[in-house]
Amino acid sequence: MNFELFYTDYLKKLQAYQLAFNTISFEQYTIAPKDGIDYSNEMLAILSKEAFQIENNPDTIQKMKEYYNRLEDGLEKKEIQYRLEAIADSQSIPSDVYGASVKLAADSMMKWHEAKEKDNYEIFKPYLKQVVESQKQLISYSPRFTGNNTYDLLLDKFEKGMNQEKYDAFFEKIKENIIPFIQKIKESGTSIDDSFMHKTFSIERQEKFMDTIGEFLKIDKNKVYLSTTEHPFTSSFSHGDARITTHYYPDSFLSAILSTVHEYGHALYGLQVNPEFEGTMFYEPLCAAHESQSRFLENHIGRSKAFWQANYKDLIEQFPEFKDVTVDALVNMINKTECSLIRTEADELTYPLHVLIRYEIEKEIFAGNVDYDTLPTLWNDKYEQYLGIRPNSDATGILQDVHWSDGSFGYFPSYALGSAYAAQLYRQLEKEVDVQQVLENNQFEVIANWLKENVHMYGNSKSMEEIVEIVTKEPFNPDYYIQYLIDKYSKLYQLK
Amino acid sequence: MNFELFYTDYLKKLQAYQLAFNTISFEQYTIAPKDGIDYSNEMLAILSKEAFQIENNPDTIQKMKEYYNRLEDGLEKKEIQYRLEAIADSQSIPSDVYGASVKLAADSMMKWHEAKEKDNYEIFKPYLKQVVESQKQLISYSPRFTGNNTYDLLLDKFEKGMNQEKYDAFFEKIKENIIPFIQKIKESGTSIDDSFMHKTFSIERQEKFMDTIGEFLKIDKNKVYLSTTEHPFTSSFSHGDARITTHYYPDSFLSAILSTVHEYGHALYGLQVNPEFEGTMFYEPLCAAHESQSRFLENHIGRSKAFWQANYKDLIEQFPEFKDVTVDALVNMINKTECSLIRTEADELTYPLHVLIRYEIEKEIFAGNVDYDTLPTLWNDKYEQYLGIRPNSDATGILQDVHWSDGSFGYFPSYALGSAYAAQLYRQLEKEVDVQQVLENNQFEVIANWLKENVHMYGNSKSMEEIVEIVTKEPFNPDYYIQYLIDKYSKLYQLK
Repeated sequence: MNFELFYTDYLKKLQAYQLAFNTISFEQYTIAPKDGIDYSNEMLAILSKEAFQIENNPDTIQKMKEYYNRLEDGLEKKEIQYRLEAIADSQSIPSDVYGASVKLAADSMMKWHEAKEKDNYEIFKPYLKQVVESQKQLISYSPRFTGNNTYDLLLDKFEKGMNQEKYDAFFEKIKENIIPFIQKIKESGTSIDDSFMHKTFSIERQEKFMDTIGEFLKIDKNKVYLSTTEHPFTSSFSHGDARITTHYYPDSFLSAILSTVHEYGHALYGLQVNPEFEGTMFYEPLCAAHESQSRFLENHIGRSKAFWQANYKDLIEQFPEFKDVTVDALVNMINKTECSLIRTEADELTYPLHVLIRYEIEKEIFAGNVDYDTLPTLWNDKYEQYLGIRPNSDATGILQDVHWSDGSFGYFPSYALGSAYAAQLYRQLEKEVDVQQVLENNQFEVIANWLKENVHMYGNSKSMEEIVEIVTKEPFNPDYYIQYLIDKYSKLYQLK
Repeated sequence: MNFELFYTDYLKKLQAYQLAFNTISFEQYTIAPKDGIDYSNEMLAILSKEAFQIENNPDTIQKMKEYYNRLEDGLEKKEIQYRLEAIADSQSIPSDVYGASVKLAADSMMKWHEAKEKDNYEIFKPYLKQVVESQKQLISYSPRFTGNNTYDLLLDKFEKGMNQEKYDAFFEKIKENIIPFIQKIKESGTSIDDSFMHKTFSIERQEKFMDTIGEFLKIDKNKVYLSTTEHPFTSSFSHGDARITTHYYPDSFLSAILSTVHEYGHALYGLQVNPEFEGTMFYEPLCAAHESQSRFLENHIGRSKAFWQANYKDLIEQFPEFKDVTVDALVNMINKTECSLIRTEADELTYPLHVLIRYEIEKEIFAGNVDYDTLPTLWNDKYEQYLGIRPNSDATGILQDVHWSDGSFGYFPSYALGSAYAAQLYRQLEKEVDVQQVLENNQFEVIANWLKENVHMYGNSKSMEEIVEIVTKEPFNPDYYIQYLIDKYSKLYQLK
């Protein structure tokens, strides 16, 4: 990017603070000793305030506006436009209101933890209410706030350009097609025995096999650090540094593998964005875009027959226990579908229904139609209605996800949208590349490179909707996602 | 501490930047992927500049001076005095001079690495010259600079209150007593066979035994993170967070253990300083003080018979290879003395001579008496004269230590001084605590607590010279150190 010096300096400074936040936070989740966390949280708050002041310095913003007006159309102008929009959304928020919201989010998350542990929604209820009110208040300072578009603006925050109207159309298709299709599978009576996937294997052996998978995916240890945490996540530090965490379960061999493949999808994105975008609004893609890449790797590569065929020899060598399981049987187990209560453990087919439920409840919350006293019942009713199973506890129901506790409303829907983007992109990859052949030949770099050239390099300089259209030469169409799921599972469950 | 708000805010901000530096730097040495280092270095430079501006803001300094004048004598006043002194030393340095020195130090360190790898002093020579000139220039801006006290001010930087006169007296005693004593040992003909210590043991087994030692030392995993790096070091993050690194060698079983015990001495210091001092000039003790605590643990605890007696059962259990080695034989091997070329691998007795050599050469350098062309010869001559062995390469001679490459002149002498402080402190501990009994009873916390109450809690609010005098009720006296070494090694080598 070719910015004027004042703006390059501004970006560099913000990058430096961002690296400090990323590093300190990453350590809190991984290697930092527990007793240092309160201290580092206090220091993070001080650094955030410093960065906030630099970011929102009125003189700099004035300079940016003048610069924006001087600039001709192009990437530079677009970047500054994005930044001025983001600043506009936050700059009118009084600092005490902002401070209170940060404090509330932290307290609320703590209470959510306690409530989940004690399996008691009542502990979290008053905080949930307050967090919703706090989000409404924050959004009301946006110049784009019209009086009744709070949820639209929240959706837009996590995926630029999205709103209720677009998500309604998207989820309507999911609802219409996936719910009856799952019913059809149930009625078919076909079932897959995946008890083999739940044999107990030591973490040491799993880690060793993970190295094998890492080599297959050509994970570059000079660029990627792999660690373990309770909840797997990815943190992109720079174009040369991505951090992935995973979680090993002795009785769920597959979990760590698919989780690492998923997180590597995120990591690869961060590593392959045009390095010129580093530090700009274009560097860090938004949620649905990011999720499209993690799901791309997890579902279309990590759950594919070609992937397991390519790694089968190593699998049998390291786990002779699998020697009587054919590749086909293995892939069937890996893709087994089953209506279950926990989103993060859901299979590819039922996953969007978990998201649908959260989306519908969020809409009701921001429409003001929700009675907080009976929210768990609303949640459970929807699980019963869409998935045919009813949670018998708050912990496996309304309290299962962390997102609402810190006010991340509007985030969930992007998960399902990401899967749909992934399906359409994968369809195109298959037209251009012989995926089966490439994986069998141990050439994952061909796929990584395809993703780089066609998707990753744009970063956030284009929306994923635009990217999908450029790559596939037609507009984004969720029908491809639905068709992909129905084709895959029809075959798996031998439906006509 | 009870400071006015403006000053507390100032300290807190600097603490926050310090945590960011510590965290990013620690990661660079441990978990950070290699390809992210250039980026994080660039970001560190930006954050340093931000912190420097906050630290040296003229308005704040003016406020501090007024505050200092208003304050009554006490800890608060002393802290601000220390800070104003430190600021005075650096604030007149023009920013281009300072910037050039930082750049030179980085380049020079790189060249030193290359020179050591290629075993060629000529590569490093021009940089060494420049680094010396750069240090002279930086010191010349100090208000305490008189025209010919550069090296005194460098010594003071690493141990407040020290100068050539005091160090000369100290090293003269070392020279007079230790050199002839080592000669006496050589002439006695007694030798200790420690080939057992160089059996090959897998790193996994060594790590397991390190856990045992960690439990014995009551290392609290909620406060201490242990990692591995090429060169072991400690980084104190806060009163609840210390990082230790160690290095395992398959054929040097003892090395990792003593290195961890040494580093834990540093870590414990940081964890046990009065938490009220956090963020102040009193929090981070200076070099000799710090080294006194690491050597205290390494030499007086980690190399003691009581320590190995207490851990003998576990040792034999985990390393049955040692079952025919008695505790006495083991402790003899651990304490074997031998004139060798490498400081970091030297035993307790020869160690101060390695430091003496560096001290004498540094004095010559800053007295302007050194010919850079023949510096390696000067080094080698001194090794031959004091230790009776002559390096046959630059890598094992003049190039072995990193310190001079980034301009840390005046640092080395504090290593020997720290050992002397440790000896006098340990003598007092023995009067107050039955160390043998305490270690045998697996009560290391008694010693840790004694150190906390008598040494650590003061942090840098008193000099180690003052602390030694308070604890032992007599002035610091290096004779105790010399006597301790002579007694210990006379017994070990059965000298009369």
